[in-house]
Parts: sequence; structure tokens; C-alpha cells
Amino acid sequence: MIGIFDSGLGGLTAVREIRKLYPNESLVYFGDTGRVPYGTRSRETIVKYALEDYKFLRSFGIRAVVAACGTVSSTALDELKAISDIPVVGVVEGAAEAAAETSKNRKIGVIGTAATVRSGAFERALREIDGSIEVTSVACPLFVPLVEYGFTSPDDEITAMACERYLKTMAEKEVDTLILGCTHYPIISSVISKVLPGVKLVDIGAESAKRLMKVIGGEVADGGEMRYYVSDDTSMFEQSASVFMGSNISGSVQRVEL
Amino acid sequence: MIGIFDSGLGGLTAVREIRKLYPNESLVYFGDTGRVPYGTRSRETIVKYALEDYKFLRSFGIRAVVAACGTVSSTALDELKAISDIPVVGVVEGAAEAAAETSKNRKIGVIGTAATVRSGAFERALREIDGSIEVTSVACPLFVPLVEYGFTSPDDEITAMACERYLKTMAEKEVDTLILGCTHYPIISSVISKVLPGVKLVDIGAESAKRLMKVIGGEVADGGEMRYYVSDDTSMFEQSASVFMGSNISGSVQRVEL
Repeated sequence: MIGIFDSGLGGLTAVREIRKLYPNESLVYFGDTGRVPYGTRSRETIVKYALEDYKFLRSFGIRAVVAACGTVSSTALDELKAISDIPVVGVVEGAAEAAAETSKNRKIGVIGTAATVRSGAFERALREIDGSIEVTSVACPLFVPLVEYGFTSPDDEITAMACERYLKTMAEKEVDTLILGCTHYPIISSVISKVLPGVKLVDIGAESAKRLMKVIGGEVADGGEMRYYVSDDTSMFEQSASVFMGSNISGSVQRVEL
Repeated sequence: MIGIFDSGLGGLTAVREIRKLYPNESLVYFGDTGRVPYGTRSRETIVKYALEDYKFLRSFGIRAVVAACGTVSSTALDELKAISDIPVVGVVEGAAEAAAETSKNRKIGVIGTAATVRSGAFERALREIDGSIEVTSVACPLFVPLVEYGFTSPDDEITAMACERYLKTMAEKEVDTLILGCTHYPIISSVISKVLPGVKLVDIGAESAKRLMKVIGGEVADGGEMRYYVSDDTSMFEQSASVFMGSNISGSVQRVEL
């Protein structure tokens, strides 16, 4: 069994990819919907919440934990690894490797929450791979609300205008590869691509699944059960989850108090 | 001493107005910045958080509590009043009275968070005053992030477009008075007024201060101290608070764990 958590719903984009690679292993997901978003909070608060999320998932017999959240992965991964006796996989390393492999001109962009960009985690990971990479990072705090409140049509003018404003620097810096450093962002990738045509987008959810495979190997077939836990109303979660999963969620959803 | 709380920063617009009416009475503010926003959460979670906020403020020697939050006032006020032995003042009643007095054509609009609109609290309050009032309510979930992430210039095109989309119905319904049912919204009132020219806007923070005066009377001069407590980083709070206060905040800010 593998545990996956996120501040809210975004981590479901990672669950979808992990399920593809681990079709017969049980997965347990925790979305902290009662305290989402994390990306605008202080480092101290993000670490506190992430440790609580981790401890909840450890109440299951899991063999690895995926922090399927750009904010947690860039802000609290060291703290999680320090207390964990099972592998903890974040979204930063895999995405940085994928971006470094993809980029031709060595100009890579990173977008994420305020906390993610403040942390500098993606820059550090990219520079460790190749010190010559030029990294441009921009915080896009409005993207999470735009996704959560349904501004997700490929033709949405408000989302397009927000993309233009936030991503102007990326065009000026001529990045050829852009890391979508938040698990919400793939939902508006078609709008991002219109503003940055030709730029390759790196989906951290998909890369975290591949990274997990590298770290813990193939699946342990234990029934392939899917369980979801959230810290706010389950029906609100069920209604919104399909946006991130690409289909209705299957499996039980339960509410839990941390 | 009077206690005031909000999910985050918006309640400071009420603090500003309360300070004007109570210049020499001590005020204590709690902003739940570690769990903001409330407006997109379930009723059950909002009630739980509101009761925790209330209990924290009761650790001070306060004589009244103001729920300076449209979401709490419309969703959890009955629960707060049920457990409280001191007056609890919300933002709904005062704003409904002011709107009913202002409106000439008896067509009143209400905008607020998803939870506020779902609650129907403003409609009920307006219809209790005058059953002939036609109420149009629209949830505007993107407004809080727009304010919190700095899209607050009167010329901001993204905010203007969001206003146009959300407020189209208000123009069609010919409302002549609009209740800004969330303490964040006065910050973008000039953009709202451009989209709805001639429509009178009701500021729930200002009306809650007047309502407080009606309920508890004039001030008890006890030094006029100002104390702020937040559940996330104090420096982030101090940086953003001036937007809502109209000036830098004066008084001590402390972090607290609920």
C-alpha cells in the first residue's frame, strides 16, 4: 500500500499517474481540504500541516509516502524525510530531472505557489543536475483559485489574462521548458500553452509517479484498493475530484479530523 | 474590551470602523490566517472553526464579540449565539437594514462566498424587513483571492473581467443596491462600481460597527489598546493588513495555536 497526500485536490493528478504504474497495489489518499490552500501560508505552518498529514497516512500499513503537492515538496520534504523510516517521495526531483532532459536551450521556467517559489527548491534541484541551467521562477497564486473555482475552460478569458500576466517573463527569458510546480496547474495547461506556444510543460504529478517507481520499484499486488480521506465535507470532494482524476473517483471517501 | 474575529484579514475593514465608534475602548482581533479561507468550506467545518475562534477570544475579558466575516455570520451565527453569554454581533442584520433603507426600487443584490450565498442568510434578513424586496444572490469565489493576491488596482483588467462575469445578473435584474457580503470586497469596490454604475454598495464591516453600537451601546473607555492575534506568520499579516486598514496597523501582533 502507498500513501499519497496533498493540501487538497491537486494531488489527485498524481494519484491518476501512480494508479497507471501500480494498477494492483492499494493506494490511500489524504487531501487536507479543511485547510487548503497551503501555498500562501508560512513555511512553519506548511511544515506543521505536512507532518500531521504524514502521521495520519502512517496509521495505514503503507510502504512509501508521496507528497503530491508542490508546496509541501519544496518546503517540508527534509522535515518529512527526517522523521520517516519509509521512503518519502516529493515532486521536485523527478520534475527537475525531466525538465533538464527536455530542455534544449538550458533555459527552464518554474511556476508554483508563493511558498514554492520562495523555497527555491526547484532551482536548487535543477542546478544540482546542471549548473549551467538558467532558471526563471514566478509565483502564480491566482492559478489555484482559478482551477478550484471552475475557470478551467481552454477559452476562459480570465484565465488567459492571468496566464499572460504571470508568464510574460517566461517568454522574455525564452524558456523552452516550464515546470508546472503545483499539482493544480495541469488542469489549465492548454491555456498556458496558448500563451507559451512551443514550450514543453513538465507535469510534476506524472513525474512523481515515475520517481516513486525508481525509489520503491514495481508494485506489491495487495488488491488495488483505493481509499480517500479528506478533512472537510466528502460530497464537496467527490464533486470536484473528477476534474483532477479525469473521471469519477472510484473507492470510498471518508472524512477525518486530524 | 471588544473581541472581533475573521477567517483572515477581511475583518480588519470592520476593525477600522469599530475603532472610529469606540476610540478609547480596547479591541482584540483574531484572524485565522492559518486556515483562511472559510467561504469555500462546508457548513460543518465553518461552524467548528468559528466556535474555536470564539473560544479563543473569550480568553480575554471581552464584553461582546463581532463575527466580522460574511461567511461566519451567515453560516454559524446561531451556533455562536447558542453558546455565548455575551452579545455576538454578525454582519448580516446591520447590512440588511442598511440595504433596505437605501434601496428605492426594492431590488437588492447580495454577493458573497459560496458558503454565504448557500446559507441564504442575507435573503432571509431582507425578507424579514420587507417581504416585497426582490433579492438576487451571486457567489463570487474568485474575489477573495483577487484581493489577497494584489489584483486590487482600480484599473486591474482581470478583476474588472471577473466583476463583469459575476455581476452581469445584477445589472440584468436592475438591482439598485448591492450588499458586499464579504469583508474583503470593499477593497475592490471601485471596480465593482465601474461595472454597476449608480448602484449603491453596502459595506458589511461599516454596518457591523453601527450594529454593535445599537446592541452594546457606547464605549467603555479602558485604554483603547489594540491587540492582534493570528494563526499563521505575524509578518505576513503585518505586510498585508495595511490594505484592509487603510494605514499601517498599530498595536501588537502575536501568533497563537488554536
